[in-house]
Amino acid sequence: MRAAIIGGTGYGAIELIRLINNHPYLEVGSVVSNSQAGNNFSESYPHLTDIINQPLESFDVNRLSEQNELVFLATPSGVSSKLVPQLMDKGIKVIDLSGDFRLRSQNEYETWYKHSAPEEKYLSQAVYGLSEIYADEIKGAALIANPGCYPTATSLGLLPILKANLADSKSIIIDAKSGVSGAGRGLSLTSHYAEINENVRAYKLGAHQHIPEIEQVLKDETGRMVTVSFTTHLIPMTRGIMITAYVNLLGKISTSEVNDFYKQFYESHPFVRIRPDGIYPSTKEVSGSNYCDIGLHVDPRTNRLTIVSVIDNLVKGAAGQAIQNANLMNDWDVRTGLNSIPMYP
Amino acid sequence: MRAAIIGGTGYGAIELIRLINNHPYLEVGSVVSNSQAGNNFSESYPHLTDIINQPLESFDVNRLSEQNELVFLATPSGVSSKLVPQLMDKGIKVIDLSGDFRLRSQNEYETWYKHSAPEEKYLSQAVYGLSEIYADEIKGAALIANPGCYPTATSLGLLPILKANLADSKSIIIDAKSGVSGAGRGLSLTSHYAEINENVRAYKLGAHQHIPEIEQVLKDETGRMVTVSFTTHLIPMTRGIMITAYVNLLGKISTSEVNDFYKQFYESHPFVRIRPDGIYPSTKEVSGSNYCDIGLHVDPRTNRLTIVSVIDNLVKGAAGQAIQNANLMNDWDVRTGLNSIPMYP
Amino acid sequence: MRAAIIGGTGYGAIELIRLINNHPYLEVGSVVSNSQAGNNFSESYPHLTDIINQPLESFDVNRLSEQNELVFLATPSGVSSKLVPQLMDKGIKVIDLSGDFRLRSQNEYETWYKHSAPEEKYLSQAVYGLSEIYADEIKGAALIANPGCYPTATSLGLLPILKANLADSKSIIIDAKSGVSGAGRGLSLTSHYAEINENVRAYKLGAHQHIPEIEQVLKDETGRMVTVSFTTHLIPMTRGIMITAYVNLLGKISTSEVNDFYKQFYESHPFVRIRPDGIYPSTKEVSGSNYCDIGLHVDPRTNRLTIVSVIDNLVKGAAGQAIQNANLMNDWDVRTGLNSIPMYP
Amino acid sequence: MRAAIIGGTGYGAIELIRLINNHPYLEVGSVVSNSQAGNNFSESYPHLTDIINQPLESFDVNRLSEQNELVFLATPSGVSSKLVPQLMDKGIKVIDLSGDFRLRSQNEYETWYKHSAPEEKYLSQAVYGLSEIYADEIKGAALIANPGCYPTATSLGLLPILKANLADSKSIIIDAKSGVSGAGRGLSLTSHYAEINENVRAYKLGAHQHIPEIEQVLKDETGRMVTVSFTTHLIPMTRGIMITAYVNLLGKISTSEVNDFYKQFYESHPFVRIRPDGIYPSTKEVSGSNYCDIGLHVDPRTNRLTIVSVIDNLVKGAAGQAIQNANLMNDWDVRTGLNSIPMYP
Repeated sequence: MRAAIIGGTGYGAIELIRLINNHPYLEVGSVVSNSQAGNNFSESYPHLTDIINQPLESFDVNRLSEQNELVFLATPSGVSSKLVPQLMDKGIKVIDLSGDFRLRSQNEYETWYKHSAPEEKYLSQAVYGLSEIYADEIKGAALIANPGCYPTATSLGLLPILKANLADSKSIIIDAKSGVSGAGRGLSLTSHYAEINENVRAYKLGAHQHIPEIEQVLKDETGRMVTVSFTTHLIPMTRGIMITAYVNLLGKISTSEVNDFYKQFYESHPFVRIRPDGIYPSTKEVSGSNYCDIGLHVDPRTNRLTIVSVIDNLVKGAAGQAIQNANLMNDWDVRTGLNSIPMYP
Repeated sequence: MRAAIIGGTGYGAIELIRLINNHPYLEVGSVVSNSQAGNNFSESYPHLTDIINQPLESFDVNRLSEQNELVFLATPSGVSSKLVPQLMDKGIKVIDLSGDFRLRSQNEYETWYKHSAPEEKYLSQAVYGLSEIYADEIKGAALIANPGCYPTATSLGLLPILKANLADSKSIIIDAKSGVSGAGRGLSLTSHYAEINENVRAYKLGAHQHIPEIEQVLKDETGRMVTVSFTTHLIPMTRGIMITAYVNLLGKISTSEVNDFYKQFYESHPFVRIRPDGIYPSTKEVSGSNYCDIGLHVDPRTNRLTIVSVIDNLVKGAAGQAIQNANLMNDWDVRTGLNSIPMYP
Repeated sequence: MRAAIIGGTGYGAIELIRLINNHPYLEVGSVVSNSQAGNNFSESYPHLTDIINQPLESFDVNRLSEQNELVFLATPSGVSSKLVPQLMDKGIKVIDLSGDFRLRSQNEYETWYKHSAPEEKYLSQAVYGLSEIYADEIKGAALIANPGCYPTATSLGLLPILKANLADSKSIIIDAKSGVSGAGRGLSLTSHYAEINENVRAYKLGAHQHIPEIEQVLKDETGRMVTVSFTTHLIPMTRGIMITAYVNLLGKISTSEVNDFYKQFYESHPFVRIRPDGIYPSTKEVSGSNYCDIGLHVDPRTNRLTIVSVIDNLVKGAAGQAIQNANLMNDWDVRTGLNSIPMYP
Repeated sequence: MRAAIIGGTGYGAIELIRLINNHPYLEVGSVVSNSQAGNNFSESYPHLTDIINQPLESFDVNRLSEQNELVFLATPSGVSSKLVPQLMDKGIKVIDLSGDFRLRSQNEYETWYKHSAPEEKYLSQAVYGLSEIYADEIKGAALIANPGCYPTATSLGLLPILKANLADSKSIIIDAKSGVSGAGRGLSLTSHYAEINENVRAYKLGAHQHIPEIEQVLKDETGRMVTVSFTTHLIPMTRGIMITAYVNLLGKISTSEVNDFYKQFYESHPFVRIRPDGIYPSTKEVSGSNYCDIGLHVDPRTNRLTIVSVIDNLVKGAAGQAIQNANLMNDWDVRTGLNSIPMYP
């Protein structure tokens, strides 16, 4: 099955190419980059020399829909909302890695993203692609809103305890740490090596566009109002996200009981791994892979649960989950093309 | 004034030497390392070639007290408790950078540090050297228990809002991020480059020995019971600590009011700098310096205050605050020898 | 085909496991670690949780030869020389990633490695596994001495120009830069994060054990005496080796002519890629892959050729080339299991 | 003495401010940045909060010459050549950190820098500010062309052996490794964190504008034609340059003889330190300081000398040497304001 990639010179697209290359049923189809159409791919990314030799194309909806059966959009927010209608009108299935179709409320979208929301007609068809939670809906979807990197690590970490009604949904605090690749290949002082290296910075306090996405999925799944404190930190590494989340427990429950409960919750989900009592995952332990690894600790002094959840932001937080969703849509085993071992060290 | 340094081949001692070299009234006296006595300093630390040429000495309390007027202990926990009595009996003033004399309760010490506490006779003379808060007590002290790196950043960040009774002292969550130098020069898999680089890990959840130290100072200053959630993370950098602390506010108060209040609180304290509304400090902005920089954000959605507090763990979190305390003990301007500009980038 | 791995808790073994997992015809057989026999693998390497669940075994030559058809030795130098005879006597094929069987002269081995050389009987059967150069010999071999990381990058970079007799073999200078993983997971001050980060150091000048290995292969292939200057540098990264080599050219030849010549030389070798004129490879462009990428520059001012050659030290410099050799020994396509795209960024 | 800084928002200017702050006789005067005139300094550089509170000024030659006694130009190449004439015509002394006045030949300048050279009238007054070599000329100079970072480390490393006529000046190969801060704060893909981290790249082979500068000083001091091979590498760190230089020796001489000879050569120069036989400097050992540390190795197998020379590119390679030159111009001890201990780790 030929899959087109739009937004071909960003890190999301590059990771899609890496993963599709390992996939037995998918192959890289058209690769679109309006800004670099006509250029050879390996000029921008020499690591693809002799591997991907096709030139970058400009966006042409007819050609795309004729030559490909699936489209991955790895475009910036605000772009997908314009391309998706054209693609869907051609009947081609779309997996959108941007934030454009994640929030059901146009209002919320415009408040947090500061530009206009997609049309209701298309928005209403979008299925939120958190693979472990919405597998059934994803199977039949024509448009997947692939989750954000922070919301993926956060939701997978919090949903078991919240859905079981064991924690106070008003007490949620999420302290997030991310590598730099999440901000893309664009140039800015906050991706300048000399400013990032040997440095940690907190950014966008109370203003990150992933806040409403996290609250939406937690509300959907618990049926309760959820308002979270969410702080993002940029740390000196390229890949990886760690979420450290804190919730007040509603009753007495031990770390090992929580561990067992999480293991059961994710029993049939091969990409979520629960660490044993006293062990916490680190981001390198999932690097390059589609795993979300989770460690749990109940502090009896405060009766709070601390959840440590890690992903590779470019894989489970973007391209990998997109492939996982493609697998679901096509009724392939969810691990197809995604069973590489994390690259360690 | 000649100041001896004991524990001479650790990073704390090395940083003391760097700072004392800039100090107009202090000079490096005896440097003691039992494990490397007789060796030349620059064999272990070639950056000191032609600067510190004296050999490392073994511990000899008579010689030390004759040749020096002040002793800095940069020894591991459990060692200071044995050396301090000998030194104090000779009448020499001591600033101890280890954790041995920080906890007033012997019981607490033994619970968290897992070895025996110092004798009550000496413990009771120790003054906790959080310079901005205990300046008066420090001035007359014979023994300073220099605060830990995490407790310094945490206490300076939390005390203003807690002392003003504006926040719920039972809601405190502290998410800490540290560079690797805090763990010293000893060898362990958790300081191995290939394990740390491109990686974040959470460690010692609910078990870090700085927890009782933080709770002790917060209780002392607020008069209320304080139990904190405290999670430490190791991030891929050498120097720097960032604390992101979360507290529930007791009333309505805006970010800019909190900012003003913090500015006032630290008005006469040159080493604490408050960032303006919407700006948060990063660790590199204090690198090599004695500053503690603080940024504040009130989220009206949750009525929680987020406090971002950064220090250089080896300076304000160790050697710098020790010098600041020596300044206080000698009635020198608190900035003496400490007014270097942070090294940026 | 079941392949055993001996030295199972080092980085070489871990990388073998990652690559074998991607290989259609190989599977991980016994994994031996005498020091950790009986332990579960994921205790040392949590990234393998739910992937490799078998316990680590102790070395038992009978069990090994019964249960496996091939053995990879990822043991320290001095260990392989003791294990290889036992394994070969059982008739099992061995690929040794250590340096023990690379030097044909026992004398040279003992001079540079400082311990006793393997027995002549086994040494004489070893085939040097530089896959691109010795494919024919490798096909029939019972014992492969898998090349060192530096010699691989160096030989592939230098052999085309030297074999063509276009450069002065007495003028060779090799300036090598390596990430830290090459030194393994053992603890030492030279792998301590705080000592390596933000730092470059030169080490083992004139004394590196890869010098005789480089000289041996260059002599073998050119028939001339070769004595090289070889300087290794440790740089702050985990994976990757870059060799910058300098040779005096014997006649006038342009960069683009050299480029064409190298392209031709490696035409049938998919893992060597030559960059176009004016472009030089960086280590990240081969990260996680088996490629050796080469860039070339002739300076008409000095008539010297500068060769930039990069590999991932754990892949083409160790485990990847070992798999490539296993492919050759089994008459599988040389790319089998090795066609993953480099992980970028 | 008030010293103005022009180019106030680059890393060079920031380092000048840090060093001047430590200097007993210099103080920061006007700080000029045309692009950010009127802005507060700490908006761009929050680490200067409460330290430098003056606003950035626009360039006004009258005000500058009235209010300052010395001007440091930390402007990009091509800008200094336009400002220097205006400043010199006002009689103010200038230390130019850019490359504009380093090459005596206008032709060479235009060949390598690709824009027009400064006027001969001013160019002829420039003294090349390699402090250890040209102290006498610097003392009386009105205009200092402060050396480039690579040429400083290279010249100090090579001049002793070349001036003594002990090495073949046609055999010089310089393999240089630099941190990212040398390229400044400007945005480019080659300073993007995700592209630099875990990566080494070679750049500008045979085309670096520091080549003619190195050759000029080596020719001047040896009286012989010198053509060097010079390759620059970008490595993942912020500060620091290491030069590994290779020369063929003309006679037999041992490492320890070379060491003694270098020690003697730099006997009266406190900022050059020679490591003992078998020890080589690393960049972190000079971080934040004005030292140039040198290690030497003679390989008897090749009769080649390998020279390892390290500096902090922003200090001895820029702002520190500029201060050192200001000390010379004012007959102050050369160490004034520059005797801080390197920041380690």
